[in-house]
Amino acid sequence: MYRTHTCGELRIENIGHEIILAGWVQRIRDLGAMSFIDLRDRYGITQLVVDENTDESIVSKLKELGREFVVQAKGVVRERLSKNKNMPTGEIEIALSEIKILGPSKLPPFTIQDDTDGGDELRMKYRYLDLRRNVVRENLVLRAKMAHSVRTYLNSKDFIETETPVLIKSTPEGARDFVVPSRMNTGEFYALPQSPQVFKQLLMIAGFDRYYQIVKCFRDEDLRADRQPEFTQIDCEMSFVEQKDVLETFEGLTKYMFKKVLNIEVEDFPWMPYSEAMEKYGSDKPDTRFEMLLNDISEVAKGKGFGVFDKAEYVGAICADECSCYTRKQLDQLTDWVKRPQIGAKGLVYVKCNEDGSFKSSVDKFYSQEDLKQWAEAVGAKPHDLILVMSGDKEKTLSALGELRLEMGNQLKLRKKNVFKPLWVVDFPLLEWNEENNRFHAMHHPFTSPKPEDIALLETDPGKVRANAYDLVINGVEIGGGSVRIFNSELQAKMFDKLGFTPEQAQAQFGFLMNAFKYGAPPHAGIAFGFDRLVSLFAGLETIRDIIAFPKNNSGRDVMIDSPSDISNEQLEELNLKLDLKENK
Amino acid sequence: MYRTHTCGELRIENIGHEIILAGWVQRIRDLGAMSFIDLRDRYGITQLVVDENTDESIVSKLKELGREFVVQAKGVVRERLSKNKNMPTGEIEIALSEIKILGPSKLPPFTIQDDTDGGDELRMKYRYLDLRRNVVRENLVLRAKMAHSVRTYLNSKDFIETETPVLIKSTPEGARDFVVPSRMNTGEFYALPQSPQVFKQLLMIAGFDRYYQIVKCFRDEDLRADRQPEFTQIDCEMSFVEQKDVLETFEGLTKYMFKKVLNIEVEDFPWMPYSEAMEKYGSDKPDTRFEMLLNDISEVAKGKGFGVFDKAEYVGAICADECSCYTRKQLDQLTDWVKRPQIGAKGLVYVKCNEDGSFKSSVDKFYSQEDLKQWAEAVGAKPHDLILVMSGDKEKTLSALGELRLEMGNQLKLRKKNVFKPLWVVDFPLLEWNEENNRFHAMHHPFTSPKPEDIALLETDPGKVRANAYDLVINGVEIGGGSVRIFNSELQAKMFDKLGFTPEQAQAQFGFLMNAFKYGAPPHAGIAFGFDRLVSLFAGLETIRDIIAFPKNNSGRDVMIDSPSDISNEQLEELNLKLDLKENK
Repeated sequence: MYRTHTCGELRIENIGHEIILAGWVQRIRDLGAMSFIDLRDRYGITQLVVDENTDESIVSKLKELGREFVVQAKGVVRERLSKNKNMPTGEIEIALSEIKILGPSKLPPFTIQDDTDGGDELRMKYRYLDLRRNVVRENLVLRAKMAHSVRTYLNSKDFIETETPVLIKSTPEGARDFVVPSRMNTGEFYALPQSPQVFKQLLMIAGFDRYYQIVKCFRDEDLRADRQPEFTQIDCEMSFVEQKDVLETFEGLTKYMFKKVLNIEVEDFPWMPYSEAMEKYGSDKPDTRFEMLLNDISEVAKGKGFGVFDKAEYVGAICADECSCYTRKQLDQLTDWVKRPQIGAKGLVYVKCNEDGSFKSSVDKFYSQEDLKQWAEAVGAKPHDLILVMSGDKEKTLSALGELRLEMGNQLKLRKKNVFKPLWVVDFPLLEWNEENNRFHAMHHPFTSPKPEDIALLETDPGKVRANAYDLVINGVEIGGGSVRIFNSELQAKMFDKLGFTPEQAQAQFGFLMNAFKYGAPPHAGIAFGFDRLVSLFAGLETIRDIIAFPKNNSGRDVMIDSPSDISNEQLEELNLKLDLKENK
Repeated sequence: MYRTHTCGELRIENIGHEIILAGWVQRIRDLGAMSFIDLRDRYGITQLVVDENTDESIVSKLKELGREFVVQAKGVVRERLSKNKNMPTGEIEIALSEIKILGPSKLPPFTIQDDTDGGDELRMKYRYLDLRRNVVRENLVLRAKMAHSVRTYLNSKDFIETETPVLIKSTPEGARDFVVPSRMNTGEFYALPQSPQVFKQLLMIAGFDRYYQIVKCFRDEDLRADRQPEFTQIDCEMSFVEQKDVLETFEGLTKYMFKKVLNIEVEDFPWMPYSEAMEKYGSDKPDTRFEMLLNDISEVAKGKGFGVFDKAEYVGAICADECSCYTRKQLDQLTDWVKRPQIGAKGLVYVKCNEDGSFKSSVDKFYSQEDLKQWAEAVGAKPHDLILVMSGDKEKTLSALGELRLEMGNQLKLRKKNVFKPLWVVDFPLLEWNEENNRFHAMHHPFTSPKPEDIALLETDPGKVRANAYDLVINGVEIGGGSVRIFNSELQAKMFDKLGFTPEQAQAQFGFLMNAFKYGAPPHAGIAFGFDRLVSLFAGLETIRDIIAFPKNNSGRDVMIDSPSDISNEQLEELNLKLDLKENK
């Protein structure tokens, strides 16, 4: 037996008991006459003591020990002289009678503490040491707890957890697939799923009624900070439901998780049309923890001889409360910030609202005090506020103003980590025009149903068709999205046609689904939550990397196991493949 | 709203209520004055009625309907005249007031009933229709229920469910890997995991203490009836434990599942050494639902002038109770059966034990009644029993006799589906000699720890070293296996050396693990259950295919979605790959 108790278990009631612990040496304090060892495991830390009564052999054994050694320690529980009320085991200590090294340790490349001295690359290379840090492990415990709460809730609602295949078929729509060469089917490939979309729809056609799965999905994209080539979804589908049924069910799930995991009661989620989100927040994933809404001031800003605004399709403004004190330097920095390529604005106009009701702006040459008063009224500005104005192409300006709003929210500390504001964004456009290849793309995916009242527009003005699609947004993060699905093979065929598929292409790629619709398909709808993002939101983290046990870096590499890697020529030959490496890469 | 109730919900208490149902038309009975429709969903079947009081428009609407149409039906619940006590909704029916076709259906290619007329290929091609059959869906509901019980149990024991990566690194040991070309890392490949083995060991080194995961694994093998290229494991690992701790924990899990899911109490699992399993059952996965043990009768069978036995390394026998009545034809069939290439025996000797205490054998020429009496005593045969004897190389003969034992068990109906006999097979050899490439292979895997008392044998007689490895066997099926792991980098290096790895190869493949051992590794051990097999055992099925929602066929194809398939030249180019198809395939 390696241990009688864990390192988090012993209490004052255990005094006098002879016990065995096992764990990692967190630290050793040698005070001359006495030495203390903090022994750590997942469950806590217990203090081991060596003093003048301890056998000499043990005292000398201590000299061999170092940080992160794995040891087995035997001894008697006794009351501490100076108790530590901050730790659960802080009232007791162990008078050591035996100690055995189970696994020695070299000096770790970084300290195993909440605030480590290890940089990102080093921590990833030695991820197994990084995971020893409480803060990192706790993220993964949180993740497990959240997965459990998802299952508990959905099981209670009669959802059947069903595994769908990982080796599926490559489809041209959407992001790039990872592919897997088949040895048994020469020259052919499987693909890894970007989502189990068609399988969950087939499960509805199969009469499963309610399906869910917490499932790995894959996307071969150039990675950004918050993307991983493999990621986890809470994937769900329901039959005989309308949009509001899905939203109710998954609002219920989300509230349940907040309550069970964080003990937070969140309010009912408002529904916001996509168009409103764009107009008021400049984003389809508005952060509603703070106001500072976007205002269209075109009417009052145009026609006064300021060419920039006069030429612009749209002039918009936000009002930052109590920011008239912003210095010239701060305003210049904001201007530089919006001019960065990520935002791409041409410039920034400001209006300071003075205490006496007068205004000071960067465009005083063109606008009278009376003009600026109209602006202030349009944005609801009070004395001491700062109005920030941008103009240009409407869509781009809304988006840039939305980014500026978030930046101001950051600067004014309005985006509090412990405040959660979920909402549903609804009524997304069905299609979006893609300039690059001159055709419509599905905004959500090609199985999304148009709103019945908009179906006629598919022929006349496809860009205007709204979809029965919805996103769950929390604190400016898109947590999930879904839609009511098409369940009729003719409408599905029309949809593929609008997306530029020939009937043959549609048949080759999705024939099995369109065929399935012909054998009695129920109305159905679904949703998928990005589980990694939801966990990182709950954990109060900026990226998803720290809530994944073994993440990959921005080049898609696992630097710990050094993957991807070469494979042998025999493997390539068996797969009937040849590397075709170009020279100038 | 598509429905107010499901098709399994309405009872006598609902009489008089106006309700809406939605579901599939199971069948329509047109009795002239009246018509009945059985409306089906996942939850049950409800009878809809049209009679002389029904609106004419509905009566004519019925003519459009056929099997598997999806309809929405409105009506009033009323008491049935002739009740059907066999169905939960059998006391009521719905007087139809409105019916709407939601999804029409072509005639399905096979009947959607428990006993369908669809063949295997057809059912797989239209899997979404096959899954509508109650018997198939119930297998998947069972699967979900079992997964839930696994999680409930392991969560209660402080195991942390942790996801490990799917895109990992190819290793030469074990079965063939599926590989995934990396676009971002030119010329390099990920591999799909055959198991999360090294990651779960790293989680132990990371101090997770107890890990589990229900996880997809992948093996690119030529498929047999009971194999799939992707399969699901219950994968577990524990720290600071010995073999018995692991066996206790997972015996607990197994008993919990039997109780929760099947309401069966199983007895404590016996431990059987590998050597005993081979000697007594001719198999490392003995079916202990029946006795009919193998007996070594070399001592009494050799030296009587029967050359076949005299030359044999081993002569073994089983005793089939009450089978002396087997006819010549039956015995010839058994002889043919053991001569099949799958068994590969040269022949079969029988001894019938007559009622009067005399014997009749196929080798009467060589053996006296007294000799045969010795055989009968050696195998514990009574009058009316049949002794079956085989001889030759010991290992092969044990195995052939083991197969014959199972066949006799089948013939005598001793392998009852509703009886469950779990046991632990322990003390496996660490290594097995591979004739083909003339080196030792790891019997379990290269991370398995030898028994400490056998470590010295590694140098002198590696084939004799026993491992701290164990299998859970139920009814002759290997449900799971695991081992105590090596947690010391020198012993691990020695193990790789015995397996024929050069130090460089070991370092390249598993350097990260051996390095991890140097930073304080705890003793650890684990196990993995084949979840698909466990579910099919619980479901009383022979193959795993029917407990997988979308399985692949024996060529690794999904015939429904037609995968694997070609990919585009653009995709190949982006991956820097060329097909290298040989002509004569």
